[in-house]
Amino acid sequence: MNPDFSLKEYLNNRKTLIDRAFDDYFPGDKDEPPEIFQAVRYSLLAGGKRIRPILCLAAAEAVGGNVEAVMPAACALEMIHTYSLIHDDLPAMDNDDYRRGKPTSHKVFGEAMAILAGDALLTEAFRLLTDRKRMPDIPAEKILDVSLEIAEAAGCRGMVGGQVQDIRAEGVKVDLDTLHAIHRRKTGALLRVSLRAGAILAGAEDVALADLSDYGDKIGLAFQIADDILNVEGDPAILGKGTGSDAARGKMTFPSLLGIEASRARAEELVLEAHTSLASFDNRATPLRAIARYILERRF
Amino acid sequence: MNPDFSLKEYLNNRKTLIDRAFDDYFPGDKDEPPEIFQAVRYSLLAGGKRIRPILCLAAAEAVGGNVEAVMPAACALEMIHTYSLIHDDLPAMDNDDYRRGKPTSHKVFGEAMAILAGDALLTEAFRLLTDRKRMPDIPAEKILDVSLEIAEAAGCRGMVGGQVQDIRAEGVKVDLDTLHAIHRRKTGALLRVSLRAGAILAGAEDVALADLSDYGDKIGLAFQIADDILNVEGDPAILGKGTGSDAARGKMTFPSLLGIEASRARAEELVLEAHTSLASFDNRATPLRAIARYILERRF
Repeated sequence: MNPDFSLKEYLNNRKTLIDRAFDDYFPGDKDEPPEIFQAVRYSLLAGGKRIRPILCLAAAEAVGGNVEAVMPAACALEMIHTYSLIHDDLPAMDNDDYRRGKPTSHKVFGEAMAILAGDALLTEAFRLLTDRKRMPDIPAEKILDVSLEIAEAAGCRGMVGGQVQDIRAEGVKVDLDTLHAIHRRKTGALLRVSLRAGAILAGAEDVALADLSDYGDKIGLAFQIADDILNVEGDPAILGKGTGSDAARGKMTFPSLLGIEASRARAEELVLEAHTSLASFDNRATPLRAIARYILERRF
Repeated sequence: MNPDFSLKEYLNNRKTLIDRAFDDYFPGDKDEPPEIFQAVRYSLLAGGKRIRPILCLAAAEAVGGNVEAVMPAACALEMIHTYSLIHDDLPAMDNDDYRRGKPTSHKVFGEAMAILAGDALLTEAFRLLTDRKRMPDIPAEKILDVSLEIAEAAGCRGMVGGQVQDIRAEGVKVDLDTLHAIHRRKTGALLRVSLRAGAILAGAEDVALADLSDYGDKIGLAFQIADDILNVEGDPAILGKGTGSDAARGKMTFPSLLGIEASRARAEELVLEAHTSLASFDNRATPLRAIARYILERRF
């Protein structure tokens, strides 16, 4: 352990770098048509925790890579996450009026523009990812492989498929295996690939890549369980949205299936396993270790 | 000219190849979750004319390339077109119940699934595009460059931006320059990049690539004008949707701005210019020449 390491400082520093990159990619409303850039910026800069890009950068660091060199991929991951939130919040989907304490995209810009803002973010994510001029020192093959993995994680067999399974499971009693399968696709795949993307682009060896994928699987699930717990007992003022919304919708969650205490125990176990996955890494993996612990403590 | 060339046979043959490729990429509902694959297949196999993939394959051919080698890119272009139709038809957008004579995605599967099917098609398009195992003989740099150009053509500065401008222009009197700018983004960019993608992947020289881009610009606009004319005077039974819908919505079109006769004359002029762009090509460009002429004759 690095006794001097401050996760809070680290996360703030990373957020600043990421926000600066977004400002660079989407510089205000100078572009035509301004409406779409406004809507894209609104959601991108709506106070996200930047978990996916931070994991991507931290994975690159853990294998000795350069943070700035993989920034386009990190930002692309956040854009894909953001598009999925905009579309999930639509009236035809979860019909949420607030997200992180701010009105959702369709409440501000209308439904048509929210649909288009999501489409734009997804498309522009691949524009960033596939632009080799932005990642000039990384071999084209690696950029392609990462783009493919991200598309797989976001597509029918990943995030979109998970969302479909989640909608199908509403109001239905599902078992733990099904719940795991849904979360692996809906949220797990993109978290896992966030780590893999940073590591692959930074030139990770196969063993390190496997370890980081494993870490990603563990914290992905831990994160989901923590999220479910927060939805039951979190502080709405801090959360920026109402609690109990999962239960009201008849969504099966880890707490509803296992109870709060067993859910918390499972999350703690996963965080320990995530630490074990990083056993062969040196102190360049300090941020990843700290992030894993943080999942249990977070109240945001 | 090849007097023996039959465009009808050519188009049928190409459609068959493309449909077979889609069957290969999305093999029925064996995949989990089946709902999303059903919705994706429904729209992909709803009788599209396959103009974009056919142009992509024909451009590859025109520069001496192999049609099967660029098939993943051709199919990706059709998937991006298809996603845009599904989202454009949604109640919050154009609210269309029929497309090509069949109920639209949200009428069959519901709004949530239609939004997700569009998201899936867009994501899966990039999955196909960035998978170098599917295009093993093409350098990774070229695959990346094509993926980037397609993302640009589909994103904020292309198709999505054009759709936003189009919505903004509804019921407003716009001038010819604005109408051109909207169509260049909304439909022109993806048609242009369809030709460029096929040509780049097939290893086109810069001059040939510039000529094909020019051809793409001309037929893209000709195609849009022909479409606008059909919307005024086409046969709804053949069109698969009602005529006059543009006028009812207060959409500015080329006929509403120039009149039918001047619009037709402009389309004919553009088709001649498209032919001129191909002046330095041999008879491997016969299909592209025939497609340009076909735009003026089509009644579909």
